[in-house]
Amino acid sequence: MAARPTVEELERGVLAGDRASLARAITLSESSRVDDQDQAQELIARLLPHTGRARRVGLTGVPGAGKSTMIEALGVWLIERGLKVAVLAIDPSSARTGGSILGDKTRMQRLSGEENAFIRPSPSAGVLGGVARRTREAILLCEAAGFDLVIVESVGVGQSEAELAELVDTLCLLLVPGAGDELQGIKRGIMELADIVVVNKADGDRIPLAKRARGDYRHALRMLPPSTPGWETPVLIASAEQGDGLAEFWDAIESHRALLEESGLLTERRTRQERHWLAAMLEEAVLANFRARPGVAEALAEAEAEVAAHRLTVPQAVTRILTAAGLTLPPAR
Amino acid sequence: MAARPTVEELERGVLAGDRASLARAITLSESSRVDDQDQAQELIARLLPHTGRARRVGLTGVPGAGKSTMIEALGVWLIERGLKVAVLAIDPSSARTGGSILGDKTRMQRLSGEENAFIRPSPSAGVLGGVARRTREAILLCEAAGFDLVIVESVGVGQSEAELAELVDTLCLLLVPGAGDELQGIKRGIMELADIVVVNKADGDRIPLAKRARGDYRHALRMLPPSTPGWETPVLIASAEQGDGLAEFWDAIESHRALLEESGLLTERRTRQERHWLAAMLEEAVLANFRARPGVAEALAEAEAEVAAHRLTVPQAVTRILTAAGLTLPPAR
Repeated sequence: MAARPTVEELERGVLAGDRASLARAITLSESSRVDDQDQAQELIARLLPHTGRARRVGLTGVPGAGKSTMIEALGVWLIERGLKVAVLAIDPSSARTGGSILGDKTRMQRLSGEENAFIRPSPSAGVLGGVARRTREAILLCEAAGFDLVIVESVGVGQSEAELAELVDTLCLLLVPGAGDELQGIKRGIMELADIVVVNKADGDRIPLAKRARGDYRHALRMLPPSTPGWETPVLIASAEQGDGLAEFWDAIESHRALLEESGLLTERRTRQERHWLAAMLEEAVLANFRARPGVAEALAEAEAEVAAHRLTVPQAVTRILTAAGLTLPPAR
Repeated sequence: MAARPTVEELERGVLAGDRASLARAITLSESSRVDDQDQAQELIARLLPHTGRARRVGLTGVPGAGKSTMIEALGVWLIERGLKVAVLAIDPSSARTGGSILGDKTRMQRLSGEENAFIRPSPSAGVLGGVARRTREAILLCEAAGFDLVIVESVGVGQSEAELAELVDTLCLLLVPGAGDELQGIKRGIMELADIVVVNKADGDRIPLAKRARGDYRHALRMLPPSTPGWETPVLIASAEQGDGLAEFWDAIESHRALLEESGLLTERRTRQERHWLAAMLEEAVLANFRARPGVAEALAEAEAEVAAHRLTVPQAVTRILTAAGLTLPPAR
């Protein structure tokens, strides 16, 4: 049995761009064992000075829009041009269903065979601190390993766009030409979060339909506030299967990145994301601590029933639950 | 000096539709004094069986869209038809600025003179539990006082739409015809939350412009998911100043209400809002409790600086803050 690598060994391996070390480091960060977590955090802390360089791109879209095919096509295209591409899948629903059905490497056979590609499926349920946190740490680890582009793919069904926007610099929405109701599967607000919209499957007979959809979405976007100040969200057509429109897609990603850098928004956005992450994780920990107190679960269930029956006001219910937990109501705000 | 009314007296007054009692009850619910709060909660608990009947309508829009003028016009029109109309202003920014400049009755002179109208400005800063909570309680009190329609007006600048949607059954967005960038002042996602869109100021020379804007918004909305399942958000034109389009606006509100009732969504939505309110208020109380612990503020500031300097990972920062507060990290999730 091979000895467990030390933090120093993993650090050297990740910095050298070794994919096995990177995979092990991510596994360590996903572990819920206390000693694993201590090691993972020590490792990430050491690697922090080497993070931040990659394009962090999110890709979302309705099921069947061809997200995996697009990532594979764009990924291979970029690797041919000398870049290193990492793909992370994020599936918030896996926390409930116990792992993504789609979250395996077999989806991107060509890309996964490439030396300069790294593909990581969505973590299974029970990952410490949730899927978003694991993805943040995986992004940092990929950056330390020298990847130029980290694509975070949302494989959940339209639940995760706002969360995804908090993880990346550039959010891309993949659509298909169709009957005009393609967006039914997309969560509210996603059109307004998208930095780039790509109408995929624009090939053969579907080209006129795709062009019409492009016009419609351009028109719709003009009615919405910009995703990034000073940025007009481009609507592109592409065919991942035919390899059409990849250069235009990458150009749009690079243009958005350039705007973010020149305007100072890149640093601003990432700092905000980091502060948001700290605040959210701290709140989560404090609330988990509260819920674990004896008597809280029972008091909450009871209070909820009383409120639903209109026998108790909501503030009365809150006071009752806090009292059951042995806490005093904080002073008035 | 008049004696302070008892809870029983206020209960009778509110149920009789007495506007002075209603105003006093709302003031009591806004007070941060512990004894006032106890009384307010007892009063609301007694009145709960008499709540739930009103149309709860939210109105938002860019500054200058004519929200007050529209509320006044619609309110007077409805009172002429035998209904009782309450108007509550909500201004989340007042929590920061110390009270809304616009939050006074002088805006709606005609309506405030009506026997069957009740107008309440936005509460000032320091109201216990925030503006949203005060508004929820004011809605309940207005319902117990027999009002048929409660309009909640967002007078903040585009910060509050999602919060407003959590308070009402039907969310209306008021726009003006213009250069196509009217939405710049509106927060992201608002178009997709709107149940009814009204293009105001459609009078005289501006009618063609308003009709064009109506077409544009209709087109844009077709690209977005519905605000309510089975509902196609209507886009109307109106002139609050001329009194045009009021019947159509009210018809749309009634149609939306009918859909909510027939589909069972009204009960479902309100129950969800109530559960959301309880959870949010409880979390707020628990977090306020945590922040008030000795050492927490210092530990948080220190940890934030370390994270910003990339010397500490976010999970390490969280552990440090929890330790400083004397809490243990909750078990792995």
